[in-house]
Amino acid sequence: MLAVIRERYRAHGFDEIETPVMEEYSRLHAGIGGDNEKLAYNVLKRGLDADAIRGAAGDPAALTDLGLRYDLTVPLARFYATNRGQLPSVFRSIQIAPVWRAERPQKGRYRQFVQCDIDIIGDASARAEAELAVATLDTLDALGLEGGSIRINDRRVLDWMLDSFGFTSDERPGVLITIDKLDKLGPDGIVAELRERGATAGAVDAFAAFLRRPTTLEYNPYGERQIRKALPDGAPDDIVAHLVGIGAAVAASRGSATELEGDIPLVFDPFLVRGMGYYTGTIFELAHPSVDYSLGGGGRYDGMIGRFLGQDVPAVGFSIGFERIVDLVSERTDAAAPAVVLVHDRDVPEGELLALKAALVREGSRVRLEQRTKNLKALLERAASDGYTAFATVAQGTTPASLEVKPLA
Amino acid sequence: MLAVIRERYRAHGFDEIETPVMEEYSRLHAGIGGDNEKLAYNVLKRGLDADAIRGAAGDPAALTDLGLRYDLTVPLARFYATNRGQLPSVFRSIQIAPVWRAERPQKGRYRQFVQCDIDIIGDASARAEAELAVATLDTLDALGLEGGSIRINDRRVLDWMLDSFGFTSDERPGVLITIDKLDKLGPDGIVAELRERGATAGAVDAFAAFLRRPTTLEYNPYGERQIRKALPDGAPDDIVAHLVGIGAAVAASRGSATELEGDIPLVFDPFLVRGMGYYTGTIFELAHPSVDYSLGGGGRYDGMIGRFLGQDVPAVGFSIGFERIVDLVSERTDAAAPAVVLVHDRDVPEGELLALKAALVREGSRVRLEQRTKNLKALLERAASDGYTAFATVAQGTTPASLEVKPLA
Repeated sequence: MLAVIRERYRAHGFDEIETPVMEEYSRLHAGIGGDNEKLAYNVLKRGLDADAIRGAAGDPAALTDLGLRYDLTVPLARFYATNRGQLPSVFRSIQIAPVWRAERPQKGRYRQFVQCDIDIIGDASARAEAELAVATLDTLDALGLEGGSIRINDRRVLDWMLDSFGFTSDERPGVLITIDKLDKLGPDGIVAELRERGATAGAVDAFAAFLRRPTTLEYNPYGERQIRKALPDGAPDDIVAHLVGIGAAVAASRGSATELEGDIPLVFDPFLVRGMGYYTGTIFELAHPSVDYSLGGGGRYDGMIGRFLGQDVPAVGFSIGFERIVDLVSERTDAAAPAVVLVHDRDVPEGELLALKAALVREGSRVRLEQRTKNLKALLERAASDGYTAFATVAQGTTPASLEVKPLA
Repeated sequence: MLAVIRERYRAHGFDEIETPVMEEYSRLHAGIGGDNEKLAYNVLKRGLDADAIRGAAGDPAALTDLGLRYDLTVPLARFYATNRGQLPSVFRSIQIAPVWRAERPQKGRYRQFVQCDIDIIGDASARAEAELAVATLDTLDALGLEGGSIRINDRRVLDWMLDSFGFTSDERPGVLITIDKLDKLGPDGIVAELRERGATAGAVDAFAAFLRRPTTLEYNPYGERQIRKALPDGAPDDIVAHLVGIGAAVAASRGSATELEGDIPLVFDPFLVRGMGYYTGTIFELAHPSVDYSLGGGGRYDGMIGRFLGQDVPAVGFSIGFERIVDLVSERTDAAAPAVVLVHDRDVPEGELLALKAALVREGSRVRLEQRTKNLKALLERAASDGYTAFATVAQGTTPASLEVKPLA
């Protein structure tokens, strides 16, 4: 699966980079990691003596100088700031690598997990979002997960919408946390929770009235008319144009009519929030009909690179959570590469056995040696479940010419 | 390169596993990591309060519960102990992954580096060493690094040899450290250093006499006669037979005559030491004529799995240091997969551009978009150095049919 993901991302013009697992403590805790900063694993300083430890009693951060990355975006920002001179003006990166968060491990949530990220740095246009969306959907298709779709919103849409209802900017973070539960609580639940929170009453009323409009929760198909219909009147033209531009480029890429009446796998969702605080524009979430959780997501974070570079650079990324897709993909054996188990008697000389193995490897096969056991059936079944497709039995004196390779049932 | 290494290891019947980067502190410091234990990065406990920190002043280990792995062998031993019931009786694993050591970074020595390990657990015979050696050499060949060779010794040979000269077992670790410098100091330097160390005088004399024999430092070709010639008289039959068995199996695998007169890429080196304390038998080092440092190494560590399993299981491994080979391999562009740069004018609509890209991706190309800059030559040169093989210029109105793809010079 990782090979398929790499190959598809590369085909779309992204280049793989590798960044360090450990980052300096100060960089991991610069405020750009949002809530994930609290979940970072920190590395104990080496060579601490008793005095230094006692001195850190009031300031545990003095015990650490490095930490494990909690996402791939912080290391990417540093990589770009360090290597900008050697990179293309629009840099498209792949990172497929583990990250760590100190959460209680539970089903679907691990302390180490793999993110498959693509990012485009240096392109502020809607083309960047479209390239990410097309590459991501193509990758899902290549994994056999056809039918994926991407929910899209823009942080600026949320900000404008809440302003227009009359929420104050102080209320905004709390209101967004509530809106994020729309799928779970429904419109009435949302309104009730906002009242409980004590949000500005007039704003809650205006929001409630908006939610009750018959057209508010219809998003499809994706186009300017539909986007405007899903929003309060008067949405800013530049933001709507950016959203429409993404759809137009995705449609063109998929061979649909550019007037957007084609069936493109995008859904405009004005209530999509995404947790991370660093997003500044478009936000995405990747959905698939087979599951009710998102397989990944991302967004635009135009401010972050500037933290390292001292100069703002537009950036947008899309991440697939490997652990979220791994169970959805059914195992496929690579029919082009035969895989043979050589089941040998105990007394076959080492040289004979390795010569047989070498002959098959040279012919392009994958070869495993197994000493014959009483339960040959169990042995062959396990080999088949490991992707082996054929077997041959080897006794003393078997030569490459006399070897009979049979398919594994 | 990583894809080539994976593919070759798999062809030889090894299966890739992934193990966690963090391990419990107690497991990393159980004495099986040798000197590397001191180099482990340890992770600070979460939620430490001032009292807990003060209480750890006399015992810094109380501040940590996890650490970063310093090799891939400790996690493998735990993986095997945990999953033994589901694994084949002889388990052949691949691990290609980073490890961490808190050393001062310097040329060729990093705090994070990638090891490419193959291990065979559950086979005490010389066939296991031969399978590792053949797979390793085949992998080097596939990377275009033909001409590699493997230096082999056995820890038991060293122990027996030092005993036979008359060194005490207490002296052994120090004597081995000195012998490890033979390449650098030469025979006379070794003997001088042993005398300085104050090693048993009679033993040093016996060793000096042995080193002065005209045949001692001739190792090639690899066969029983040559192995015996390179050792003091009376080397134990079982150890010599194991060494000879490795050669016979490698020779058979490479298609050489089994009487070992063929030119096989093995060298017996009775003075090869290898630092790690956990080796119990065969030890290897991988050499290549283009460099004077080893590219990797390994050995038999029959005692280690037992630490986790409570029952001894034979095990042997071979590791290639990725950073040690990466500079030796010249970049090869994959001729089978065309890679096209689309150099577009600024005003080409996003949809047109993505439709052109999508058409080429569908045909099997890798495609990068680049906005035209004044210095087109520099842009194309960088693309070529990134492995792109062709380009096309795109103006407004260019269609897939009118696109002219030209080779990059």
